[in-house]
Amino acid sequence: MAHVDATNTVTAVLEPSSQPEKVGSANRRIRRCVSAPTDFIPQEKDDSSVPRNQSVFSNLLHPSFRQASLILALYLGVGAICFSLVKDQIKGQKTNRILDAIYFCIVTMTTVGYGDLVPNSVATKLLACAFVFTGMALVGFFLSKSADYLVEKQEALLVKCLHINKKVGALELLKELKTNRVKYKFFINLGLLLLLIAVGMIFLTRVEKLSLVDAFYCVCSTITTLGYGDKSFSTKAGRIFAVFWILTSTICLGLFFLHLAELSTERKQRSIVKLVLTRKMTHVDLEAADFDRDRVVSVTEFILYKLKEMGKIQQEDIVPLMKEFEELDVDQSGMISTSDITRKYIESN
Amino acid sequence: MAHVDATNTVTAVLEPSSQPEKVGSANRRIRRCVSAPTDFIPQEKDDSSVPRNQSVFSNLLHPSFRQASLILALYLGVGAICFSLVKDQIKGQKTNRILDAIYFCIVTMTTVGYGDLVPNSVATKLLACAFVFTGMALVGFFLSKSADYLVEKQEALLVKCLHINKKVGALELLKELKTNRVKYKFFINLGLLLLLIAVGMIFLTRVEKLSLVDAFYCVCSTITTLGYGDKSFSTKAGRIFAVFWILTSTICLGLFFLHLAELSTERKQRSIVKLVLTRKMTHVDLEAADFDRDRVVSVTEFILYKLKEMGKIQQEDIVPLMKEFEELDVDQSGMISTSDITRKYIESN
Repeated sequence: MAHVDATNTVTAVLEPSSQPEKVGSANRRIRRCVSAPTDFIPQEKDDSSVPRNQSVFSNLLHPSFRQASLILALYLGVGAICFSLVKDQIKGQKTNRILDAIYFCIVTMTTVGYGDLVPNSVATKLLACAFVFTGMALVGFFLSKSADYLVEKQEALLVKCLHINKKVGALELLKELKTNRVKYKFFINLGLLLLLIAVGMIFLTRVEKLSLVDAFYCVCSTITTLGYGDKSFSTKAGRIFAVFWILTSTICLGLFFLHLAELSTERKQRSIVKLVLTRKMTHVDLEAADFDRDRVVSVTEFILYKLKEMGKIQQEDIVPLMKEFEELDVDQSGMISTSDITRKYIESN
Repeated sequence: MAHVDATNTVTAVLEPSSQPEKVGSANRRIRRCVSAPTDFIPQEKDDSSVPRNQSVFSNLLHPSFRQASLILALYLGVGAICFSLVKDQIKGQKTNRILDAIYFCIVTMTTVGYGDLVPNSVATKLLACAFVFTGMALVGFFLSKSADYLVEKQEALLVKCLHINKKVGALELLKELKTNRVKYKFFINLGLLLLLIAVGMIFLTRVEKLSLVDAFYCVCSTITTLGYGDKSFSTKAGRIFAVFWILTSTICLGLFFLHLAELSTERKQRSIVKLVLTRKMTHVDLEAADFDRDRVVSVTEFILYKLKEMGKIQQEDIVPLMKEFEELDVDQSGMISTSDITRKYIESN
């Protein structure tokens, strides 16, 4: 979710070119990072301890990608130790003790489940059950982290480009990139997936000596986590390859479906926005949008009304904010002014 | 996404009890369905043809659950015909021609892939590859539809209760239900999942004559779509049961993980909202929130500023709305009034 920040930054820089200042007051935008009249009150104490919203997002919604990798390593480590200890209670084609244990963990956690190695005692069966659930949750966690990470990395790159080259042409290109972000993500992912499929097929035909059709069949059976098990990785080299390839390719296919869903959601969202934007404003709307009942609709009243109509915000998002506004509006004028803030500040000290 | 409508309705009815009208103008809410001064202009034509936002949502974001079922039936029908025609090119334990074909489809589409029935020719292998991808997409589609459907059904029930019993006690209970909606959904799902596990285990011990541990192992291996294949449904009765049970239980586990993720997202979202709400308003904020630069912050300006800070809305949501506002504000007064609407109406005719 940290891409929210990057998005804001991009838009902020892009604003002048994206919309010329035609109409007076209605055309102002919420400004950030402007210097404020802080001349008669010292900088508030909590302003430095509680970071601004950008840090709030990166701290709360984006625990690092490294954390996920660490948990994965821990999971595989514990799995390798557990299953190499009970090696004799697993039946099937074996190569190397530790390698087989890791391979078994990967095949289990991704739910590929070839069945070329299967638990053969009560203890190992229950152990496998425990490992598949935790592994599944972990893959899901890893999947969401990967998605966030990829997006963030790409947008950080965009922002970097923006700072280096501030020409209008570049800006417009970047804006175009940004509006088609979901589409680009989808195609990058598709490219990566095709590459992984190709690599898998080449490996299976060369090392595991499968025919072309069988290699394709095994690749499909693996990346979809189907894992019939009639074709799988039986050699030592194959299993080393499989450990890395299975994890990346299954996660890549997961991301592919995720981005596909995102693409369709975005398309739907866009058509709603279009519908709401093109619908004519009627007198009924005018009265409904008139938040403060002064018989006219200001720009912010209009925006709130339309955002609600688009389904972007809900009534329950608004209610607590209205309560807070009332608390801040010390003189009950229906407006927060500098004097309200000052009074509030004096009250709280 | 159709639950958006239900949510609005609930909140609308709950409003009087949820927040007493203390402060004058600042405390008004955006009202819907109020009668408007349409006395000197006839009801606009497009008002009936373009439905209000509630219908917009149900039409665009919520193609019916039945549609998903129909596609599923079609998929299984085509699959049953295809695989029963190439019956001899599938090896493994067989029972009934059509039943095995459907069972094979279900085991493939859910990516369980036991491997008790495997394609044995180039044609069937490629067919299986095609079926697993379409099946996977279909299960994903079905999953999202189920999630929407369950939520909608539950909320329709809430609204119904609300209309029958309008006592304050009931209202408060329903409000409490609504705020913990994600949690309730999660627990309902967990209950359903445990029931499906129990049913599966009972069936496997009774009909497939597995031991208790093996039954548990087979259930876990199936619902997680692991499907090692050393234990699977081998009898005719078992496969009939499997067709229904595998599909519902894998989707149920998928929903379980979905709701788990939703629960954690909601918790994060809540802590952001709390952080933004408790952060003190400074002079910097005051100036940043002052949309129309009149040196005071109105309630709608405040709400927009805070929603942006919470990350609920982005700058790109606001920009097109500002453009539309400018177009509607015919006299460029910075406010839309009845006269603007009337002029716009006359212009367009």
